[in-house]
Amino acid sequence: MRELLEDIAHFLERQQLEVSLETETALNTGITDYPVLTPDELGRHCDLAIVVGGDGTMLGIARQLAPHNVPLVGINQGRLGFITDVPAGTFAESLAPMIAGDYEVEHRSMLEGGVWRAGISIFHAVAMNDVVVSRGSVAGMVELKIVVGPEFVANLRADGLIVASPTGSTAYSLSAGGPILHPGIAGWVLVPIAPHTLSNRPIVLPDGAEIDIEVVGDREVSVNFDMQSLASLAQGDVIRVRRSAHQVRFLHPRGWSYYATLRRKLHWNEGAMGA
Amino acid sequence: MRELLEDIAHFLERQQLEVSLETETALNTGITDYPVLTPDELGRHCDLAIVVGGDGTMLGIARQLAPHNVPLVGINQGRLGFITDVPAGTFAESLAPMIAGDYEVEHRSMLEGGVWRAGISIFHAVAMNDVVVSRGSVAGMVELKIVVGPEFVANLRADGLIVASPTGSTAYSLSAGGPILHPGIAGWVLVPIAPHTLSNRPIVLPDGAEIDIEVVGDREVSVNFDMQSLASLAQGDVIRVRRSAHQVRFLHPRGWSYYATLRRKLHWNEGAMGA
Amino acid sequence: MRELLEDIAHFLERQQLEVSLETETALNTGITDYPVLTPDELGRHCDLAIVVGGDGTMLGIARQLAPHNVPLVGINQGRLGFITDVPAGTFAESLAPMIAGDYEVEHRSMLEGGVWRAGISIFHAVAMNDVVVSRGSVAGMVELKIVVGPEFVANLRADGLIVASPTGSTAYSLSAGGPILHPGIAGWVLVPIAPHTLSNRPIVLPDGAEIDIEVVGDREVSVNFDMQSLASLAQGDVIRVRRSAHQVRFLHPRGWSYYATLRRKLHWNEGAMGA
Amino acid sequence: MRELLEDIAHFLERQQLEVSLETETALNTGITDYPVLTPDELGRHCDLAIVVGGDGTMLGIARQLAPHNVPLVGINQGRLGFITDVPAGTFAESLAPMIAGDYEVEHRSMLEGGVWRAGISIFHAVAMNDVVVSRGSVAGMVELKIVVGPEFVANLRADGLIVASPTGSTAYSLSAGGPILHPGIAGWVLVPIAPHTLSNRPIVLPDGAEIDIEVVGDREVSVNFDMQSLASLAQGDVIRVRRSAHQVRFLHPRGWSYYATLRRKLHWNEGAMGA
Repeated sequence: MRELLEDIAHFLERQQLEVSLETETALNTGITDYPVLTPDELGRHCDLAIVVGGDGTMLGIARQLAPHNVPLVGINQGRLGFITDVPAGTFAESLAPMIAGDYEVEHRSMLEGGVWRAGISIFHAVAMNDVVVSRGSVAGMVELKIVVGPEFVANLRADGLIVASPTGSTAYSLSAGGPILHPGIAGWVLVPIAPHTLSNRPIVLPDGAEIDIEVVGDREVSVNFDMQSLASLAQGDVIRVRRSAHQVRFLHPRGWSYYATLRRKLHWNEGAMGA
Repeated sequence: MRELLEDIAHFLERQQLEVSLETETALNTGITDYPVLTPDELGRHCDLAIVVGGDGTMLGIARQLAPHNVPLVGINQGRLGFITDVPAGTFAESLAPMIAGDYEVEHRSMLEGGVWRAGISIFHAVAMNDVVVSRGSVAGMVELKIVVGPEFVANLRADGLIVASPTGSTAYSLSAGGPILHPGIAGWVLVPIAPHTLSNRPIVLPDGAEIDIEVVGDREVSVNFDMQSLASLAQGDVIRVRRSAHQVRFLHPRGWSYYATLRRKLHWNEGAMGA
Repeated sequence: MRELLEDIAHFLERQQLEVSLETETALNTGITDYPVLTPDELGRHCDLAIVVGGDGTMLGIARQLAPHNVPLVGINQGRLGFITDVPAGTFAESLAPMIAGDYEVEHRSMLEGGVWRAGISIFHAVAMNDVVVSRGSVAGMVELKIVVGPEFVANLRADGLIVASPTGSTAYSLSAGGPILHPGIAGWVLVPIAPHTLSNRPIVLPDGAEIDIEVVGDREVSVNFDMQSLASLAQGDVIRVRRSAHQVRFLHPRGWSYYATLRRKLHWNEGAMGA
Repeated sequence: MRELLEDIAHFLERQQLEVSLETETALNTGITDYPVLTPDELGRHCDLAIVVGGDGTMLGIARQLAPHNVPLVGINQGRLGFITDVPAGTFAESLAPMIAGDYEVEHRSMLEGGVWRAGISIFHAVAMNDVVVSRGSVAGMVELKIVVGPEFVANLRADGLIVASPTGSTAYSLSAGGPILHPGIAGWVLVPIAPHTLSNRPIVLPDGAEIDIEVVGDREVSVNFDMQSLASLAQGDVIRVRRSAHQVRFLHPRGWSYYATLRRKLHWNEGAMGA
């Protein structure tokens, strides 16, 4: 990892760019040749964030940089992800034209919200993938009351409920039976996890409305905004989800295609079955 | 039916409104007391269309009136539909305030498109629910090449492919495994019917892009825009789908709720199962 | 409840039958007119168990009586269940011919097994519905290695795994996407809950083979045999499931039909949707 | 193909075995060095059938040989199938020990049945994979009445209905949402294709009962036993399906595993998705 980061840094310097390193990355790799900045400082001072890692790493840093509107590029050492699509082995060929201004830009919306107890906010977080409400440690269904804007939608009895962004629609939501949402869709998908009532199917809602999810039964419930979690929610607690005012900008090499990424990641056209 | 239509007509006259009757309806019922107009004439001359029948009837007439921007109200004699939500038995209580200007208005987008053979358009139609591409009379999979805007999406091997509007998302598309799309979503859902590759999942796309579906294999294929069908499509034919320039306006009694309609039609919260 | 139990007891006495009461039921209702027996004593001394309650109550007592081969009849005060199908309001009309020997008998197989840690059995239980292996309190996927008889089947990454009997196939398993298994099928269905790999579909296996489910990752896992649960399973623990040597016999009024029960409970033929 | 067949024939002769060629294969390849037999003659005179081709070819010949109880081995030139699992490139290493008696044997049940019109049988066929009842050339749902043994199961409104054997459960049935059935399961799965009622889920039934599927509505319906089809079924026609008295025996190289085949064909454990 250290070697790859140094290679990238040297490459960027040769392009006449100033390089800074994120604090924790500097600590973990022992690289000391560059100024070290917190994510927040990076957001305020940099024009581009280059992230080395998988989709999870990328989403974590993207969440932190979102308020600063800094675009991100993802370099991946292993299997390419949905978002991190520059192979480590050939990063220079990909980055050179991008730094020269030749790239594709893609905007991704984010979820934001928190938990309200007796009218008081007790948790606040931002998520790029999804907000997941599910049972705590005890097995069995939870009961959730879903309200969108001013309107009652349904009381759901299920293992849980996923509110996924287009970015998250290819992650956990897909496993639970949700559709793929193109990033250009201004909406979220609500996906019940193992719902008691079979007609409680995934529903795609406009992202302009606020979604309230109230804990109805007396079972312990937990909520996750991406991997940021709050356990021990109780009856009457409300999880509130809305669109974040911020968007993330991912930069991709020219010729990048959202659909090509889907084909690669989901193994389309590989003839996965059939006698 | 004749009696109900006459009751409605008398009611409208008592509200000081002029009443006209659609040509075929006049023929079928034998009512001769009112001017008879074709759907196109109705569109040009009327301020409101009142449709008596189920969702299918409503969608058919809505398609024809769409270019004229005439709003529609649906009165239903049987089980209420997703769109036709004024019960015949109490139509007067519902219609009176609506005529006085107190109503909810709901906009629905429409699909439009046709079939191109060797660059020539051979079929054109508009659909409120869906465009369905499927095998002809011979059993077995069809192969379809999906292109959105300028981008290749996938080659699909399946029984067929549904492109459903939000309105159509609760019809055939739902049976084939698609999600529900709120009418406020500016998108379509593409739902493969019994796809050979299990990861060919439903995908929700923005409605601004044109969708091209090309017949790849040598199997006979047919296409339906709602129930308007063209059979005998051949290799190389392209089904092209885009958003219609027209929208439909449905009027509902004050207090109408999209989610309440979902709950009623999909039997949510009825405890449909469980040992 | 007390009144209904007394009515049933009096009815049985009038049929020249001896009546005993289950210990906890006697305590809860305060009925003191009959001998009180533990479930195990009931199993040893009685010819028929009459259970008043829902499917959950019925399955609980059936599990306890199974070693004694006592048949059961279920009387239901609320909505009829899959198994408890004699309405409380008309129990006498249903029970009289059954006591005279005119009834349908239905056999149901049971799951049995436990948890093995470092070769030592640390938990043992019997289940009529299902064995559910799932994550503990922390969100995220678990990894499970599935072995059937001597053969490796798959490493599964998912929220969990259900092994359901035909009886359990209409309960939680159905919510998670499993098929319905007719009680005459000598098999179980393995249903992954929200599997990471989309082709990890439900699989129906013969009930003659032993199923081993090993905890692979370092996440905390819990297991439930019906509602009897063991939390805090750790890496290397093995959940072992096999067919119990015992079967349960449910008695139904003449004319009872498994398929009629499915139609009623799953609301078949009600036209649950469609525009 | 000719070359491969000759190689196999020479190999078999070197093992002191007599070789015959199936009629059509002889015609297509022009090989004239061996006695030529019809499938029926092969069934009566041979001890082993070696089939070169994919699963479809194998199932077709297996159906014809089933009454004679001749075991089959499948050699595959392309991607290995669910059943044809000896790679053409290394057939000698696989076949030598099998001919010496060292192999795994696997039994597969078959569906048999036909169509009855006004009490008269008008079509009869055998299927290894499935019996598929579906709409004819006109789009829209069909209505089917399902009866099992003497019992009414349901009226189904759908695109169609699949009755799949364990062998067929990994083919079309899987695409339509059915579970995988282990070949040791003495049952069929009934899978509705895009059912109108969402709770019309796949159901696994014992293979001892006869299944009657009656055409209820006035839409044209067609039926396929594997690829043997009868179109133009009309209202009142009954498709009757039962277990064939014959079974097929497939031979596999020692060490063959049903589950390994599933893992390979369904790409299990390949990490098919996830952000």
